[in-house]
Amino acid sequence: MNRVARIQQLAVDRDLDAVLVTPGADLRYLTGYAAKPLERLTCLVVRRTGDPVLVAPELEVAAARAAGTDLEIAAWSETDDPFALVASLLPGARAIALDDQMWASRVLGLRDAMPEARQTLAGPLIGELRMRKDAAEIAALREAGEAIDRVHLRVSEWLRPGRSEREVGRDIAAAIVEEGHAQVDFVIVGSGPNGASPHHEVSDRVIRTGDPVVVDIGGTTAAGYCSDCTRNYVVGDEPPAAYLEAYAVLEAAQAAQRSAAGPGMPAEEVDRIGRAVITEAGYGDLFIHRTGHGIGTETHEEPYIVTGNTRLLEPGMAFSIEPGIYHEGQFGARIEDIVVCTDDGIEVLNTTDRGLVRLPA
Amino acid sequence: MNRVARIQQLAVDRDLDAVLVTPGADLRYLTGYAAKPLERLTCLVVRRTGDPVLVAPELEVAAARAAGTDLEIAAWSETDDPFALVASLLPGARAIALDDQMWASRVLGLRDAMPEARQTLAGPLIGELRMRKDAAEIAALREAGEAIDRVHLRVSEWLRPGRSEREVGRDIAAAIVEEGHAQVDFVIVGSGPNGASPHHEVSDRVIRTGDPVVVDIGGTTAAGYCSDCTRNYVVGDEPPAAYLEAYAVLEAAQAAQRSAAGPGMPAEEVDRIGRAVITEAGYGDLFIHRTGHGIGTETHEEPYIVTGNTRLLEPGMAFSIEPGIYHEGQFGARIEDIVVCTDDGIEVLNTTDRGLVRLPA
Repeated sequence: MNRVARIQQLAVDRDLDAVLVTPGADLRYLTGYAAKPLERLTCLVVRRTGDPVLVAPELEVAAARAAGTDLEIAAWSETDDPFALVASLLPGARAIALDDQMWASRVLGLRDAMPEARQTLAGPLIGELRMRKDAAEIAALREAGEAIDRVHLRVSEWLRPGRSEREVGRDIAAAIVEEGHAQVDFVIVGSGPNGASPHHEVSDRVIRTGDPVVVDIGGTTAAGYCSDCTRNYVVGDEPPAAYLEAYAVLEAAQAAQRSAAGPGMPAEEVDRIGRAVITEAGYGDLFIHRTGHGIGTETHEEPYIVTGNTRLLEPGMAFSIEPGIYHEGQFGARIEDIVVCTDDGIEVLNTTDRGLVRLPA
Repeated sequence: MNRVARIQQLAVDRDLDAVLVTPGADLRYLTGYAAKPLERLTCLVVRRTGDPVLVAPELEVAAARAAGTDLEIAAWSETDDPFALVASLLPGARAIALDDQMWASRVLGLRDAMPEARQTLAGPLIGELRMRKDAAEIAALREAGEAIDRVHLRVSEWLRPGRSEREVGRDIAAAIVEEGHAQVDFVIVGSGPNGASPHHEVSDRVIRTGDPVVVDIGGTTAAGYCSDCTRNYVVGDEPPAAYLEAYAVLEAAQAAQRSAAGPGMPAEEVDRIGRAVITEAGYGDLFIHRTGHGIGTETHEEPYIVTGNTRLLEPGMAFSIEPGIYHEGQFGARIEDIVVCTDDGIEVLNTTDRGLVRLPA
């Protein structure tokens, strides 16, 4: 059964009249159509019965066909009301599910065009499919992992004292494309105290001898799958002893998580295992985020490896294991691999050295 | 008065209890904070009275401060309910406006946390500010226009018979960054019949001698402003006579629009003027889209130059003038400039040759 048909089946099971999906990762996953998220409404309408219909602006029809979709298309022209068009496909609808990233302008437009239809989120349905990767998707993630590993292996070409994070980041961004991504998603070069902000990107701070540097990078391949890997570097002199102590704890925590993770384990348990190691060593308050996130056609998706997520891991689920220790004003460190749950454990998709990488000055 | 204060004033005028803005162009415009659109809720809460508050995940606080915001921040930690936090800031709220691109997961999360609050769109309010560019914004758009013009002047380096659209597109993408953009937004290389799909991007089609090629490209500069310019090329032999006839009509139409546009003219009138020229020449059915879109911190924003938009143009409004003629299965052509309305006409921000650019084979 194809993905759209499986969503239709889930819609029936949950007593929904329709699932509506606008451009983004969900639409691409379901149909292969990587529509641009533009202001004109494009919306896949999966009804409880009958064939699915792609509502699309007239001038996107050729692009949709070129993307290989053979869906029935209901085209609207520049001065039509696309929400009325969607409503006309769903007479009497009482319950509709919307993709999680649908824009408010569409959510409220649909609400006004179909005031009797209760709106819920389609994410939980589509996520049921997306979070379980098939063999082709795992191969695509493996390829993305190899590509980002090749970038990490080249960091010594660019990371030197005297250069700014921004300069290093620009070189890394170019290499992300060179090594096999279609797109750069993010480049974090957090040197010295900047490493203590988990979502720091780059700044004009100039890297100094002995600075620990967090390098967390990712992109999307042409096949549409994401990479995401964090390694830690130091240039020239040894970093402070306090850093090295924390780093050893972090390595132990991440290794414990990799050893333990596998099918049947609750997602939150992976987090708990790493947190226990870090807390026991006295750094518990400095591990200020969850352990990880699912990954696939988006960098962050289900399953989240976080306290409270009791979902059991299953073969085919792909996610990051990325504990961190953040000492505000001082330094930070994070070790991150993408892994895929297998029948008896996990496959680790990133394989470069997880130890502190020492580069010459 | 700063931008957030102006939004607060508009909220009072429209009897709104709050305006809520999540990461994206609106948030960046209002606060300077280019937050990543991630799954954890970041939301600017502009209340009718009192200081605005930025609700943010704990691990984004450092990034928000680094972006220079001095807003009061209400941080939430990994296991808190961020919607309840927003609701707690807005006791008794009955009317809240949401940014147009807020994700459905937030729209419905806020709906459930504040069931008594009627949700409307904030786009019309924020758009009132965003569509009127100040001098610094116009300077930033001018810089973006110059950067994309430099790319068009280099197209002869890459566009040759025997190369695929994808190969040419990759080179153009690299040049968009080299010539002064922080990010590539889109690259359309539509050769031969592919030019007839307005939103075609690139394909594996190999360019042939005599093919007309539509090159429509844009990026975002480090200052956060977008470029967007379309020129038309032919390589080696002359294109078909039918194409040249249509192209002459298109040039006349676009020139007529540039001559006529100015303050006090309804946006739709700019569209009508170009459409009249094209229709009179017998190509009316082949001009299948509106004339243009506003541009600023997003490639497409208000004001749209489209039938039905009776808004009067004002000095400081920036938009594209991009009529096109699309002959399905044969060829397409589009000429696009970004212009800014001035006190007595328009300033045209793209200045390379609008005629068909003939390149050697």
